[in-house]
Amino acid sequence: MFIILVYDANEKRVSKFHKICKKYLTHVQNSVFEGEITEANYRMLIDELRTIINNDEDSVLVYKFRTKKYYEREEFGIKKPSSEDIFF
Amino acid sequence: MFIILVYDANEKRVSKFHKICKKYLTHVQNSVFEGEITEANYRMLIDELRTIINNDEDSVLVYKFRTKKYYEREEFGIKKPSSEDIFF
Repeated sequence: MFIILVYDANEKRVSKFHKICKKYLTHVQNSVFEGEITEANYRMLIDELRTIINNDEDSVLVYKFRTKKYYEREEFGIKKPSSEDIFF
Repeated sequence: MFIILVYDANEKRVSKFHKICKKYLTHVQNSVFEGEITEANYRMLIDELRTIINNDEDSVLVYKFRTKKYYEREEFGIKKPSSEDIFF
């Protein structure tokens, strides 16, 4: 399946969220990741995120699709992920 | 069509982004909006965002779908939009 994942985490944990998501998905904007993923890997990703998420402060939103062909993507402004290596 | 919009803006402009997006879409996470929108309204939304976006600092990412039926949404952690009236 194809997923879009957006997290909103306390600054202290942002880099942990980023590192876990990057193992499974492609970084597309500061806190947005997307990619093809198997159901098994998706469960592993969520399990890993659950180990760091603070349920009072952080939020993770996932959109799941059977295939990628249903969407078109548009971007405006600066392309944020291009500089990710500087920050992480 | 159905869209998911994620912005990443400088703190100074976050509330402007929020107000414009809220006119057209439903708030689902701090910087994430979604909703059914006509092509004409989508163009109006993007035109409005273009008036405030700083192309060196801000980024807007939009996923467009023909219909909403292709996705399933999962959420983990705190539900951020529930408190939006306090902040905006």
